[in-house]
Amino acid sequence: MTKLRLRVDFGPGRAIGRGKIQLLEAIRDKGSITGAGRALGMSYKRAWELVDDLNGCFREPVVIARAGGQQGGGADLTELGQRLVKRYLAIEVAAEKAAATHIRDIETELRTPPKD
Amino acid sequence: MTKLRLRVDFGPGRAIGRGKIQLLEAIRDKGSITGAGRALGMSYKRAWELVDDLNGCFREPVVIARAGGQQGGGADLTELGQRLVKRYLAIEVAAEKAAATHIRDIETELRTPPKD
Repeated sequence: MTKLRLRVDFGPGRAIGRGKIQLLEAIRDKGSITGAGRALGMSYKRAWELVDDLNGCFREPVVIARAGGQQGGGADLTELGQRLVKRYLAIEVAAEKAAATHIRDIETELRTPPKD
Repeated sequence: MTKLRLRVDFGPGRAIGRGKIQLLEAIRDKGSITGAGRALGMSYKRAWELVDDLNGCFREPVVIARAGGQQGGGADLTELGQRLVKRYLAIEVAAEKAAATHIRDIETELRTPPKD
Protein backbone atom coordinates (compact mmCIF):
# COMPACT_ATOMS: atom_id res chain seq x y z
CA MET A 1 0.00 0.00 0.00
CA THR A 2 1.31 3.44 -0.88
CA LYS A 3 2.32 5.52 2.12
CA LEU A 4 3.11 9.18 2.33
CA ARG A 5 6.15 9.61 4.59
CA LEU A 6 6.66 12.95 6.24
CA ARG A 7 9.42 14.86 7.91
CA VAL A 8 8.86 18.23 9.49
CA ASP A 9 12.12 20.11 9.08
CA PHE A 10 12.49 23.13 11.37
CA GLY A 11 15.96 23.98 10.10
CA PRO A 12 19.52 22.72 10.53
CA GLY A 13 19.64 19.78 12.93
CA ARG A 14 15.99 20.06 13.90
CA ALA A 15 13.57 17.69 12.27
CA ILE A 16 10.77 15.37 13.31
CA GLY A 17 9.76 12.30 11.37
CA ARG A 18 8.01 9.00 11.87
CA GLY A 19 11.08 7.51 13.63
CA LYS A 20 11.13 9.99 16.49
CA ILE A 21 7.36 9.91 16.86
CA GLN A 22 7.37 6.10 17.01
CA LEU A 23 10.02 6.33 19.70
CA LEU A 24 7.85 8.72 21.73
CA GLU A 25 4.86 6.41 21.30
CA ALA A 26 6.96 3.46 22.46
CA ILE A 27 8.24 5.38 25.52
CA ARG A 28 4.63 6.20 26.40
CA ASP A 29 3.61 2.55 25.95
CA LYS A 30 6.62 0.88 27.59
CA GLY A 31 7.33 3.44 30.29
CA SER A 32 11.07 3.56 29.66
CA ILE A 33 13.63 4.51 27.03
CA THR A 34 15.23 1.07 27.34
CA GLY A 35 11.92 -0.68 26.78
CA ALA A 36 11.04 1.60 23.89
CA GLY A 37 14.39 1.03 22.19
CA ARG A 38 14.00 -2.72 22.62
CA ALA A 39 10.49 -2.67 21.15
CA LEU A 40 11.76 -0.81 18.09
CA GLY A 41 14.97 -2.83 17.65
CA MET A 42 16.98 0.30 18.46
CA SER A 43 20.04 0.47 20.72
CA TYR A 44 19.63 2.25 24.05
CA LYS A 45 22.33 4.68 22.93
CA ARG A 46 20.45 5.56 19.74
CA ALA A 47 17.12 5.89 21.55
CA TRP A 48 18.70 8.12 24.18
CA GLU A 49 20.34 10.31 21.53
CA LEU A 50 17.02 10.83 19.75
CA VAL A 51 15.30 11.72 23.04
CA ASP A 52 18.11 14.12 23.91
CA ASP A 53 17.83 15.65 20.47
CA LEU A 54 14.06 16.11 20.85
CA ASN A 55 14.36 17.51 24.37
CA GLY A 56 16.87 20.06 23.06
CA CYS A 57 14.50 21.22 20.30
CA PHE A 58 11.68 22.41 22.49
CA ARG A 59 11.17 24.98 25.22
CA GLU A 60 10.39 22.15 27.63
CA PRO A 61 11.39 18.49 27.63
CA VAL A 62 9.18 16.02 25.78
CA VAL A 63 10.43 13.05 27.81
CA ILE A 64 11.24 13.02 31.54
CA ALA A 65 12.78 10.45 33.82
CA ARG A 66 10.51 8.84 36.36
CA ALA A 67 11.87 8.26 39.86
CA GLY A 68 13.06 4.67 40.16
CA GLY A 69 11.36 2.13 42.35
CA GLN A 70 11.93 -1.61 42.21
CA GLN A 71 12.19 -1.46 38.43
CA GLY A 72 14.97 1.12 38.46
CA GLY A 73 13.02 4.07 37.14
CA GLY A 74 11.78 4.73 33.67
CA ALA A 75 10.61 7.53 31.45
CA ASP A 76 7.37 9.23 30.56
CA LEU A 77 6.15 11.67 27.97
CA THR A 78 5.50 15.14 29.29
CA GLU A 79 2.31 16.92 28.36
CA LEU A 80 4.27 18.59 25.56
CA GLY A 81 5.52 15.19 24.38
CA GLN A 82 1.95 13.91 24.23
CA ARG A 83 0.85 16.99 22.32
CA LEU A 84 3.73 16.60 19.88
CA VAL A 85 2.73 13.00 19.08
CA LYS A 86 -0.89 14.07 18.52
CA ARG A 87 0.12 16.98 16.30
CA TYR A 88 2.40 14.83 14.19
CA LEU A 89 -0.31 12.21 13.68
CA ALA A 90 -2.72 14.99 12.73
CA ILE A 91 -0.21 16.23 10.15
CA GLU A 92 0.03 12.72 8.70
CA VAL A 93 -3.73 12.36 8.44
CA ALA A 94 -4.23 15.82 6.93
CA ALA A 95 -1.40 15.44 4.44
CA GLU A 96 -2.48 11.96 3.33
CA LYS A 97 -6.02 13.11 2.80
CA ALA A 98 -4.92 16.17 0.84
CA ALA A 99 -2.53 14.16 -1.34
CA ALA A 100 -4.76 11.12 -1.90
CA THR A 101 -6.05 12.00 -5.37
CA HIS A 102 -2.59 12.85 -6.70
CA ILE A 103 -1.11 9.69 -5.22
CA ARG A 104 -3.82 7.56 -6.83
CA ASP A 105 -3.06 9.22 -10.17
CA ILE A 106 0.62 8.34 -9.88
CA GLU A 107 -0.28 4.79 -8.85
CA THR A 108 -2.11 4.23 -12.13
CA GLU A 109 1.21 4.82 -13.94
CA LEU A 110 3.20 2.28 -11.93
CA ARG A 111 4.43 -0.82 -13.69
CA THR A 112 2.79 -3.04 -11.10
CA PRO A 113 0.19 -1.82 -8.63
CA PRO A 114 1.24 -1.37 -4.99
CA LYS A 115 0.36 -4.28 -2.71
CA ASP A 116 -2.30 -3.63 -0.07
CA MET B 1 11.67 28.28 7.63
CA THR B 2 9.91 25.06 8.49
CA LYS B 3 9.53 22.71 5.53
CA LEU B 4 7.41 19.62 5.22
CA ARG B 5 9.48 16.98 3.43
CA LEU B 6 7.63 14.20 1.66
CA ARG B 7 8.34 10.78 0.31
CA VAL B 8 5.75 8.77 -1.56
CA ASP B 9 6.48 5.17 -0.79
CA PHE B 10 4.88 2.67 -3.20
CA GLY B 11 6.37 -0.36 -1.48
CA PRO B 12 9.74 -2.13 -1.28
CA GLY B 13 12.34 -0.36 -3.42
CA ARG B 14 9.85 2.05 -4.93
CA ALA B 15 9.70 5.55 -3.55
CA ILE B 16 9.70 9.10 -4.84
CA GLY B 17 10.95 12.06 -2.88
CA ARG B 18 12.28 15.56 -3.41
CA GLY B 19 15.68 14.24 -4.56
CA LYS B 20 14.34 12.30 -7.54
CA ILE B 21 11.94 15.07 -8.48
CA GLN B 22 14.73 17.66 -8.36
CA LEU B 23 16.77 15.40 -10.62
CA LEU B 24 13.90 15.20 -13.13
CA GLU B 25 13.51 18.99 -13.02
CA ALA B 26 17.25 19.41 -13.62
CA ILE B 27 17.18 16.97 -16.58
CA ARG B 28 14.30 18.97 -18.04
CA ASP B 29 16.20 22.25 -17.51
CA LYS B 30 19.69 21.06 -18.53
CA GLY B 31 18.72 18.62 -21.27
CA SER B 32 21.04 15.86 -20.09
CA ILE B 33 21.66 13.53 -17.17
CA THR B 34 25.29 14.68 -16.97
CA GLY B 35 24.26 18.34 -16.82
CA ALA B 36 21.54 17.60 -14.28
CA GLY B 37 23.94 15.66 -12.05
CA ARG B 38 26.48 18.48 -12.25
CA ALA B 39 23.86 21.09 -11.36
CA LEU B 40 22.87 19.09 -8.28
CA GLY B 41 26.42 18.16 -7.23
CA MET B 42 25.62 14.52 -7.90
CA SER B 43 27.88 12.04 -9.68
CA TYR B 44 26.83 10.89 -13.15
CA LYS B 45 26.68 7.34 -11.80
CA ARG B 46 24.31 8.33 -9.00
CA ALA B 47 22.13 10.41 -11.33
CA TRP B 48 21.97 7.56 -13.82
CA GLU B 49 21.06 5.04 -11.11
CA LEU B 50 18.19 7.24 -9.91
CA VAL B 51 16.89 7.66 -13.48
CA ASP B 52 17.16 3.92 -14.08
CA ASP B 53 15.32 3.29 -10.83
CA LEU B 54 12.52 5.71 -11.81
CA ASN B 55 12.24 4.30 -15.33
CA GLY B 56 11.87 0.83 -13.84
CA CYS B 57 9.02 1.93 -11.56
CA PHE B 58 6.59 3.02 -14.22
CA ARG B 59 4.81 1.46 -17.19
CA GLU B 60 6.72 3.81 -19.48
CA PRO B 61 10.06 5.59 -19.06
CA VAL B 62 10.07 9.00 -17.41
CA VAL B 63 13.41 9.97 -19.02
CA ILE B 64 14.54 9.16 -22.57
CA ALA B 65 17.81 9.64 -24.38
CA ARG B 66 17.87 12.21 -27.15
CA ALA B 67 19.76 11.39 -30.36
CA GLY B 68 23.24 12.90 -30.17
CA GLY B 69 24.38 15.76 -32.34
CA GLN B 70 27.50 17.78 -31.79
CA GLN B 71 26.91 17.80 -28.06
CA GLY B 72 26.86 14.02 -27.80
CA GLY B 73 23.16 13.57 -27.16
CA GLY B 74 21.26 14.28 -24.03
CA ALA B 75 18.11 13.37 -22.19
CA ASP B 76 14.57 14.64 -21.92
CA LEU B 77 11.57 14.02 -19.74
CA THR B 78 8.82 12.04 -21.39
CA GLU B 79 5.24 13.22 -21.07
CA LEU B 80 4.90 10.84 -18.13
CA GLY B 81 8.03 12.32 -16.56
CA GLN B 82 6.56 15.81 -16.85
CA ARG B 83 3.27 14.62 -15.36
CA LEU B 84 5.11 12.96 -12.49
CA VAL B 85 6.93 16.19 -11.60
CA LYS B 86 3.67 18.14 -11.67
CA ARG B 87 1.87 15.57 -9.54
CA TYR B 88 4.63 15.51 -6.96
CA LEU B 89 4.67 19.30 -6.69
CA ALA B 90 0.88 19.23 -6.33
CA ILE B 91 1.26 16.72 -3.48
CA GLU B 92 3.75 19.03 -1.77
CA VAL B 93 1.48 22.04 -2.06
CA ALA B 94 -1.62 20.15 -0.90
CA ALA B 95 0.17 18.51 2.03
CA GLU B 96 1.82 21.73 3.19
CA LYS B 97 -1.47 23.58 3.09
CA ALA B 98 -3.25 20.82 4.98
CA ALA B 99 -0.54 20.59 7.63
CA ALA B 100 0.11 24.33 8.06
CA THR B 101 -1.93 24.90 11.21
CA HIS B 102 -0.45 21.89 12.99
CA ILE B 103 3.07 22.87 11.97
CA ARG B 104 2.56 26.40 13.29
CA ASP B 105 1.34 24.94 16.58
CA ILE B 106 4.48 22.84 16.91
CA GLU B 107 6.64 25.84 16.01
CA THR B 108 5.31 27.79 19.00
CA GLU B 109 6.81 25.09 21.26
CA LEU B 110 10.30 25.23 19.76
CA ARG B 111 13.12 26.57 21.89
CA THR B 112 14.07 29.09 19.22
CA PRO B 113 11.81 29.97 16.29
CA PRO B 114 12.74 28.64 12.84
CA LYS B 115 14.63 31.11 10.67
CA ASP B 116 12.76 32.44 7.65
